[in-house]
Amino acid sequence: MARPSVDIDAMREQLLELCEDLVRERGAVSFTVSDLAHAANMSPSNLYRFFESKEAVWEAMAERWFRELNDVMEDIVASDLPVREKMFQFFARRLEIKRDRYEAEPDLFQSYMELGNEHFEVIRGYIDLADHYMAQIIGEAMADGYFDGLEIDDVVSLMNLMVQPFVHPDTTAKLWDHATAANLRLVINAILDGLVGVSDRPAERVNGPRLVTLAG
Amino acid sequence: MARPSVDIDAMREQLLELCEDLVRERGAVSFTVSDLAHAANMSPSNLYRFFESKEAVWEAMAERWFRELNDVMEDIVASDLPVREKMFQFFARRLEIKRDRYEAEPDLFQSYMELGNEHFEVIRGYIDLADHYMAQIIGEAMADGYFDGLEIDDVVSLMNLMVQPFVHPDTTAKLWDHATAANLRLVINAILDGLVGVSDRPAERVNGPRLVTLAG
Repeated sequence: MARPSVDIDAMREQLLELCEDLVRERGAVSFTVSDLAHAANMSPSNLYRFFESKEAVWEAMAERWFRELNDVMEDIVASDLPVREKMFQFFARRLEIKRDRYEAEPDLFQSYMELGNEHFEVIRGYIDLADHYMAQIIGEAMADGYFDGLEIDDVVSLMNLMVQPFVHPDTTAKLWDHATAANLRLVINAILDGLVGVSDRPAERVNGPRLVTLAG
Repeated sequence: MARPSVDIDAMREQLLELCEDLVRERGAVSFTVSDLAHAANMSPSNLYRFFESKEAVWEAMAERWFRELNDVMEDIVASDLPVREKMFQFFARRLEIKRDRYEAEPDLFQSYMELGNEHFEVIRGYIDLADHYMAQIIGEAMADGYFDGLEIDDVVSLMNLMVQPFVHPDTTAKLWDHATAANLRLVINAILDGLVGVSDRPAERVNGPRLVTLAG
């Protein structure tokens, strides 16, 4: 009984490549199941064997986009890297994948970003999954004494704020040029060395001792 | 000779309020000088006395949007606040202004954001000006020993990456809910206490001494 299932999976994958061609040609414009059937030279009723609705197509496209990114996150979380390196790689590896995709086809990449914004409900689960993996690394860091005075959820939220241009590249803005691996390393260091829950004693810290001096 | 000039300024200001009404009604859709003349019950030739081109209208609208924000930046840079508080206020005061504008009229705010993205050439100078003011505060911080091993331009770039959701609110994303003054203070602390130019010695810092422990 394995044969038909494999064939359906292979056909779904081919149809998803066709979906990408449609995005490549038309930009971030939603297409219907009929459009896809037409492009595939299939009848809509035949196409529904592979995707039961337009929403199922979007979900499968999102799954295809995030597949490698999720695998990378999973690998890094499971690795025995030191926590600082783990945190850096968690963002750096995905940044590298996104940068490669962007450089291969900038317009296609931008269209995917726009589709993601328009169909946010479809990618919401992937964002939550990334937060879940990030929380595991943050938990390890907290066990090592980092993020004193903060809860894990606070750190997830604060880190998302501080690494945003590395995670969600807005290629229309100049910031993307600055979102390099080298800058990411400095940002991750700043987060690990500087992010704590003490918020209301600014004055006493001015001219105070700093890690780099004390550790030098 | 002051009279006519004052009248022209007052009329320009009224016309800019009318421009805002157009954005309020139509969203982030560009309008022509004719549209504006029609809305103002003026002939296009009369309107050209106040704005010599469509571009002049966009520039005046941007000037109106940034006026209070620029005044606030200038005040903070000139103040004798401690550098940490100055850095915090530099972002917090503008965040407060933007939050007030957003809460007063969310749709209008979003339309202004979209117009800014579409007419980036018009707002570029204001972004450069903000960077210029920020660089002055960073220079003060460096004189106090912060940002060891980094050049001012590096720090401008890194800070822009790390505070992006506080500066350029993408109200369509959930991050805006997290871009609070309390979170901003923790982010500014992390930047001041953690951001240095040493990038390639992750391992030795794990479990190493941290400022909050040493200062405690």
